[in-house]
Amino acid sequence: MKRYTTTILVGIILVLAAVLVGVLIFMRSQPSQPRAFQPLVEIADKEPDSSQWGLNFPNQYASLLKTKENKIDTTYGGSSKFSHLEKDPRQVILFGGYSFSKEYNDDRGHEWALNDVREIKRVDEKTPGTCYSCKSANNPKLWQQMGTAAFDKTPFAELGESIDRTIGCANCHEANSMRLVVTNPALEEALKAQGKDWTTFTRQEMRTVVCANCHVEYYFTGEGKYLTFPWADGTEIDAIVGYYEDLGFKDWDYPETGTPMLKAQHPDYEMFTAGSTHYNAGVACADCHMPYVRDGAAKYSMHDIHSPLLNPDLACGQCHTDTEYVVQRVNTIQEQVFRTKIATEDALVDAITALKAAAADPNADPALLDQARSFHRQAQFKWDFVSAENSMGFHNPEYILRILAESTDMARQAQMLAAQASGDASLLATGIYDQLAPKPLPAQ
Amino acid sequence: MKRYTTTILVGIILVLAAVLVGVLIFMRSQPSQPRAFQPLVEIADKEPDSSQWGLNFPNQYASLLKTKENKIDTTYGGSSKFSHLEKDPRQVILFGGYSFSKEYNDDRGHEWALNDVREIKRVDEKTPGTCYSCKSANNPKLWQQMGTAAFDKTPFAELGESIDRTIGCANCHEANSMRLVVTNPALEEALKAQGKDWTTFTRQEMRTVVCANCHVEYYFTGEGKYLTFPWADGTEIDAIVGYYEDLGFKDWDYPETGTPMLKAQHPDYEMFTAGSTHYNAGVACADCHMPYVRDGAAKYSMHDIHSPLLNPDLACGQCHTDTEYVVQRVNTIQEQVFRTKIATEDALVDAITALKAAAADPNADPALLDQARSFHRQAQFKWDFVSAENSMGFHNPEYILRILAESTDMARQAQMLAAQASGDASLLATGIYDQLAPKPLPAQ
Repeated sequence: MKRYTTTILVGIILVLAAVLVGVLIFMRSQPSQPRAFQPLVEIADKEPDSSQWGLNFPNQYASLLKTKENKIDTTYGGSSKFSHLEKDPRQVILFGGYSFSKEYNDDRGHEWALNDVREIKRVDEKTPGTCYSCKSANNPKLWQQMGTAAFDKTPFAELGESIDRTIGCANCHEANSMRLVVTNPALEEALKAQGKDWTTFTRQEMRTVVCANCHVEYYFTGEGKYLTFPWADGTEIDAIVGYYEDLGFKDWDYPETGTPMLKAQHPDYEMFTAGSTHYNAGVACADCHMPYVRDGAAKYSMHDIHSPLLNPDLACGQCHTDTEYVVQRVNTIQEQVFRTKIATEDALVDAITALKAAAADPNADPALLDQARSFHRQAQFKWDFVSAENSMGFHNPEYILRILAESTDMARQAQMLAAQASGDASLLATGIYDQLAPKPLPAQ
Repeated sequence: MKRYTTTILVGIILVLAAVLVGVLIFMRSQPSQPRAFQPLVEIADKEPDSSQWGLNFPNQYASLLKTKENKIDTTYGGSSKFSHLEKDPRQVILFGGYSFSKEYNDDRGHEWALNDVREIKRVDEKTPGTCYSCKSANNPKLWQQMGTAAFDKTPFAELGESIDRTIGCANCHEANSMRLVVTNPALEEALKAQGKDWTTFTRQEMRTVVCANCHVEYYFTGEGKYLTFPWADGTEIDAIVGYYEDLGFKDWDYPETGTPMLKAQHPDYEMFTAGSTHYNAGVACADCHMPYVRDGAAKYSMHDIHSPLLNPDLACGQCHTDTEYVVQRVNTIQEQVFRTKIATEDALVDAITALKAAAADPNADPALLDQARSFHRQAQFKWDFVSAENSMGFHNPEYILRILAESTDMARQAQMLAAQASGDASLLATGIYDQLAPKPLPAQ
């Protein structure tokens, strides 16, 4: 009798264990992740008001609000609205004829996104609604209601009447389940074009991909200014350059040189995922930019996204024991990249100067002039891909330094082709920027 | 009575503990490190015969002998005697007019050093004894007996009669105490010139500095061909370039361009110690190239020095848990550096081609020609500083990529100055190497 009881008990324990294992396996599949807590309030699908979500997630919401207060700059970036043009006047020349040569301010935190996009002087009556794509938590609902094409082609001012929230919870989370989601249709389409389905991604992959809702290279397609990522051939720099070449796309024409130019946006995602050491080691954007912290017994991911250099103990310290050493490493890397980037800018200024002279020469060889423009276009886009990116090289140092070396080489070749086009060796003068503006390097 | 006994016992214990602490502190001071074992045989001061030392240290000696057998190449280096000129024919052009354009083989292991230096076709009756400086365990004794100046100025063939041992124990160790020592007088003098006294270095510092007995940039001073390291202004590339400029030193004149050229040796030490991540983290050369292994209860440092890529579990695994990942990282870094280095070589070939033409032009502006030569000289030395170094960039990736970017920029400027000198824009042709030798990149 006792033996039977034991057998039955063991049987029950085994069945319970099997059920537990089953439940655990089920819980691991992220898309159907059940709630770990009972919410205070039910959140409507794509709710634009982050303060509603904040009732259930007060810690995350409170940290999101902090992006309004953060005003600390790092050596090369930060949370203030400093002018890139004042900090590095070479860029006034590089973006000649384009609105970025008049105003180019650094981005502030997510809480400022909506305010700041409306204050950009570049925004005018021709600005399409597309420019709100990365600025508001109203977007997911609007994209659903209006469709993306209609969203994009609505004039900026008109669309703005439907928009009252800055970047918030709805840009990356599904209501209630709180799972991470791709909300920007352009990202979903760009992933699809590469045969990727984000709904199959792991949670760790999502902790990088949701940042690509915005922190990417993009352009506007056609009359409707449809938001598009140039990723069909891949996200590496050469694939993107090739994509734009095949498309014949240009952002503006450089006056006096006649070069069809490309402006890079902020390809943080493309840089980081191109074989960087942190990405290859399985680190996600959120690991460094949204580290986990504790508030009493609660553990949560900080939502006041900023440079890890401002809180290295939290950000880097999750993996690295000696954060003082780590910060010194970041500084060393960024110094090498900054120095190389300035050298590239000097080469570009020389190339632009030579091309202007050659283009003004009525006897210049038009085929060689076009070759020079092609080198100018690609050299400057490669430089801008590095310059507009938000890490001064740290997201992927070797890749970024290789790109800068290529850009310098191409800029010099643009200059040489310009001189060949007009047969005028005097166009080969170098160090033009230092002659134009004999100031010391901007203090860093 | 019992109390007194206890007090006395406690007193004795405290005194013994104090003595023990004192002994431990004393033992930590490396220069007076007592032997940890009883040697089988007494070794004579500066004994050139490593097999004698091997009686006391059979494991270390046996692993040293393995450098005779190692024949495995890595992607970019290795232990075979492959020809750099066959692997990368651009170098035939870059070293034009110099013996390295005729024969430039990769180095093999330490056991081959003496054999291989005697087989180099570049060696002739003008070769000074200096060229034995890094090739033999006879040297420390000879330097003591003859003096360094006499050693260096003795003709190679004559000095060779006193030399019968390849690199061995006496090149880095003091007999019997086995402490690590700087044996090359040129290294001691170069350190002194920077105000450094190696006898105060920690053991971990010595595990890097002894490699600088040979793995450095050097040149021969004066008629006596006195071995000298160009470190008086520091060991960074710009300090070394400045040193050679101030000195007006040249290794050879490039024929047809008239450029006074510099040949870089193997500045592994300078690269590694210029703020690399491993050096800054306190890693020594020996940690990766001579990892500790066990033979039963004995732990010893492997002396068959080679690329850590050939035994990453031992070499990298002392610190890194995932060596498969680490090797992939090294590959990624080296691919970026290799690609950038080849682009630099292409720019140098273009510059040399233009300079040859300008130098042959009787109407060329001599001042501009000299400027072009100066850029050619510095650009090629910077490239060579990277190329001749034994890590394809891994010893210090960001620093090395910055140097390559600068070299490319300077090579292009050399070409531009050449075209300006002769007023001939046709000298600006690029991609010359591909036209000269339309072969695919050497298989790597």
